[in-house]
Amino acid sequence: MTELSQVKALTFDVFGTVVDWRRSIIREGEALSENKGFNVNWAEFADAWRSGYGPAMNRVRRGELPWTNIDALHRMILDRLLEQFNMTGLTEEEKDNLNCVWHRLQPWPDSVSGLERLRQRFIVATLSNGNVALLVNMAKHAKLPWDCVLSAELAKRYKPDKEVYLLAAELLGLRLDQVMMVAAHSGDLLAAASVGFKTAFVLRADEYGPTQTANLAADPSVDIVATDFNDLADQLIGG
Amino acid sequence: MTELSQVKALTFDVFGTVVDWRRSIIREGEALSENKGFNVNWAEFADAWRSGYGPAMNRVRRGELPWTNIDALHRMILDRLLEQFNMTGLTEEEKDNLNCVWHRLQPWPDSVSGLERLRQRFIVATLSNGNVALLVNMAKHAKLPWDCVLSAELAKRYKPDKEVYLLAAELLGLRLDQVMMVAAHSGDLLAAASVGFKTAFVLRADEYGPTQTANLAADPSVDIVATDFNDLADQLIGG
Repeated sequence: MTELSQVKALTFDVFGTVVDWRRSIIREGEALSENKGFNVNWAEFADAWRSGYGPAMNRVRRGELPWTNIDALHRMILDRLLEQFNMTGLTEEEKDNLNCVWHRLQPWPDSVSGLERLRQRFIVATLSNGNVALLVNMAKHAKLPWDCVLSAELAKRYKPDKEVYLLAAELLGLRLDQVMMVAAHSGDLLAAASVGFKTAFVLRADEYGPTQTANLAADPSVDIVATDFNDLADQLIGG
Repeated sequence: MTELSQVKALTFDVFGTVVDWRRSIIREGEALSENKGFNVNWAEFADAWRSGYGPAMNRVRRGELPWTNIDALHRMILDRLLEQFNMTGLTEEEKDNLNCVWHRLQPWPDSVSGLERLRQRFIVATLSNGNVALLVNMAKHAKLPWDCVLSAELAKRYKPDKEVYLLAAELLGLRLDQVMMVAAHSGDLLAAASVGFKTAFVLRADEYGPTQTANLAADPSVDIVATDFNDLADQLIGG
């Protein structure tokens, strides 16, 4: 472990690291099916929605699309999935409400209690590809106690582009080695480390469901490996 | 009063509206004088520091200075005042610490309780010329329960430039008439109203000390006039 006593702020990836997008979408989707008589495998739907997200962001990152926030990318993917899953008859308002399920994702069981503990010692901020409005609405809904909502939207670039991490440290008024990125995904942590952030891997072994194979182990380069946010607090602050 | 039922977020001016910069600086300054043997009228010092702030921002607004955040503007003014008030012998670290008094300003007595009440119904966000780091540090220090820290720094423009208000609404994902600016200063409110925000004036009758003459009455155009944040909560939510 490298020197961590300088760390003043923890920046958190959100989708998958703080909130359980898959179960949240399945739960809301099943309620919608009940209400509308749809016959949809919502686990498949959730996985398809999530797997459309990286390629959509990459189109923005490569400049094929102008800056487009996550709400708009989620909606582009949703419109395609509604056709693919034969879900017809939703009003514009109902589609918009379904798209906003991402504003209502549920936290993992340890997220709120772990953040409350970490917040006693550190600045705790989001650093998500989610847009600011999504993150603010999610925080109110899930009672996530952020000191600050930071988003890729502020840089108009998506992680893992370096500009996102650099802007976060600049806005927090901190040196790069005073910030620790917390994520369940190695790609995010490696990109953060490449600009000088400290890094903490948190295991979310069923983020992608029971057959998950990626992100089950930390890259050896990370500074901390934690089983959940309370374990992270134990390691950074003490039990 | 115009239609306010659409309002979803309240954006707050901070210096003077949420926190009492003048008494906070006097209190810390007097402790510094005690410690260092300075003979300084800290009320005069605080007023001079604050009155240097508008002209410094205006140099940025007119393009005479490149984008410079408030911490840096405060420091430029401080360096001048240290000479003017014959305060010699401070180390760089001591000067930096004095400059960061703006990160440690105390809230008015009603600010935290009023914000807690308003937060039950609305998104509550800063919309200050203070930089993000200053606002985040202040919030932790003063226990201000913001849902979101928004700053002129994100637009790289200073209030009352319209871009600041427009960016805030965009980041919150709201129409302009779904946002209400809350401030103790008419200039801020008139600028916000000019882009379509709703407005609330909160009286801070001794922000500038016992001889204050400006901002003792609301402009007739504002939507709400409140005596403090609890009165604002009474009017917007009910007692």
